[in-house]
Amino acid sequence: MTIDWIAADWGTTNLRLWAMSGRGIVEARTFDRGMGGLAPQDFAPVLAEATAGWPAVPVIACGMVGSRQGWVEAPYIPVPCPAVPQLIPVPGDPGGRPVRIAAGLRQDSPADVMRGEETQIAGLLALTPDFDGIACLPGTHTKWVRISAREICNFKTFMTGELFALIAGQSVLRHSLSEGEGDPQAFLAAVSDAMARPERGYGGLFQLRAESLLSGLDPAVARARLSGTLIGWELAAARPWWLGCEVTVIGAPALSQLYADALAAQGVPVSRMSDRDATLAGLTAAHRSVLDPA
Amino acid sequence: MTIDWIAADWGTTNLRLWAMSGRGIVEARTFDRGMGGLAPQDFAPVLAEATAGWPAVPVIACGMVGSRQGWVEAPYIPVPCPAVPQLIPVPGDPGGRPVRIAAGLRQDSPADVMRGEETQIAGLLALTPDFDGIACLPGTHTKWVRISAREICNFKTFMTGELFALIAGQSVLRHSLSEGEGDPQAFLAAVSDAMARPERGYGGLFQLRAESLLSGLDPAVARARLSGTLIGWELAAARPWWLGCEVTVIGAPALSQLYADALAAQGVPVSRMSDRDATLAGLTAAHRSVLDPA
Repeated sequence: MTIDWIAADWGTTNLRLWAMSGRGIVEARTFDRGMGGLAPQDFAPVLAEATAGWPAVPVIACGMVGSRQGWVEAPYIPVPCPAVPQLIPVPGDPGGRPVRIAAGLRQDSPADVMRGEETQIAGLLALTPDFDGIACLPGTHTKWVRISAREICNFKTFMTGELFALIAGQSVLRHSLSEGEGDPQAFLAAVSDAMARPERGYGGLFQLRAESLLSGLDPAVARARLSGTLIGWELAAARPWWLGCEVTVIGAPALSQLYADALAAQGVPVSRMSDRDATLAGLTAAHRSVLDPA
Repeated sequence: MTIDWIAADWGTTNLRLWAMSGRGIVEARTFDRGMGGLAPQDFAPVLAEATAGWPAVPVIACGMVGSRQGWVEAPYIPVPCPAVPQLIPVPGDPGGRPVRIAAGLRQDSPADVMRGEETQIAGLLALTPDFDGIACLPGTHTKWVRISAREICNFKTFMTGELFALIAGQSVLRHSLSEGEGDPQAFLAAVSDAMARPERGYGGLFQLRAESLLSGLDPAVARARLSGTLIGWELAAARPWWLGCEVTVIGAPALSQLYADALAAQGVPVSRMSDRDATLAGLTAAHRSVLDPA
């Protein structure tokens, strides 16, 4: 297979690269050279090093590489908009390769932004062309996205992943939570409690620490109650996005499973798609839009 | 004035010392030698250095110095209990001084713990002997405490201060918040919204970042909306503690003002007491309980 283009998912923390032949993957590489650790002049040499041995073919990139703090700012496109990403060229074809970066999306009221997920939505529509409904993309900042007639209509972001990481990793609760998976039954109970009485869940946070100190609360149960509380708050706030809808969850396996379980417990029909598959399909759709602008 | 005892507020971060003559302060000293940075064998030499030049008089200490990770564990006393702290002696009179540490409190159902605030409650009762009602002690972990007939009946902890510090200091919102005071009107509006619809406030967190990016949201308004959301959730969850009650807020001035304003907006009669005054009065009451055990 001849490498004829390169797909790049260039986020805050990592750079993931695929040497592509049409829709086929020839080789995959991952580097911990995310946007967060790079100055603008670093991106071209990092890309050259990371693609060593690959031909001088076009690069299609998505993610925080296109933010104001990234390589070249790819300004936000307002929704509603077509689901195939708009591409912004990096001036000067660094390393002899045309490099294009997918633009993020903006919503003015209520204010919201995304950068990277727009490419996964394009991938969802590439893989399931008739998709009409809601996509939920759990992660550091979970996105709920309404898609209809091959357009992204509107979306809503929650900080659930970032809040969980801060509370579990740095608050006083860090002493009381397991590292690994949480208890599934305790998770669903916490989701249900947090949805029914969000304020009670707020009072339950320090209680995890106290139960751990006073009665040896199982750390896997504590972890499940924390994640269930946060995801329960999110589902309560996102009710208009999933009530009476079919939802496709796009994300990493373990986190997607939590969202799928929580939604299924509310009677919501849930499908799953891997974030890697969605990203690659979206970058492929973007690449094809360059080859065939019609 | 002759120094006849030493009061010590020895928390996670700081060590605050007062050379006392009865109820009068002879000299005050503060050091950044909190429990968090000390091993058990460090406490005696740190105290000796910090009290250099003061006579070999008894020391009464409160705070995390009495935790399992502190100098000597002062086990939790179960509530309900009298408001004057129980004191645990440090073996061996380090530096020739008898050192006693106030025991924290535990509540078994719902599980909760406090360490340090019990001394402030003792101070509240020393300064207002007829106090019967609710004390709110805002801080890293805010405590709501029900006091009746000179006993601590029960209490409830919220992680509001710690959550605010993590979100404002380390989440993506850190780019969007002012360092200083927040906007008072935006604060009260956010409290009211979060109390009425807690889940909507959860959806409003990332919106602070998006409004900052898209429409230049005033950082002082963003800060006020974040703190108002968290304090509003706390007030919603703590409603049984303040509804129809008089509340005394004991804490640092700026944070206490936020709680007093939020409670006053709910029609709650609020009094204020400084945490330093309460701590010193509580340590003084504990010292007197040693002199006169009746």
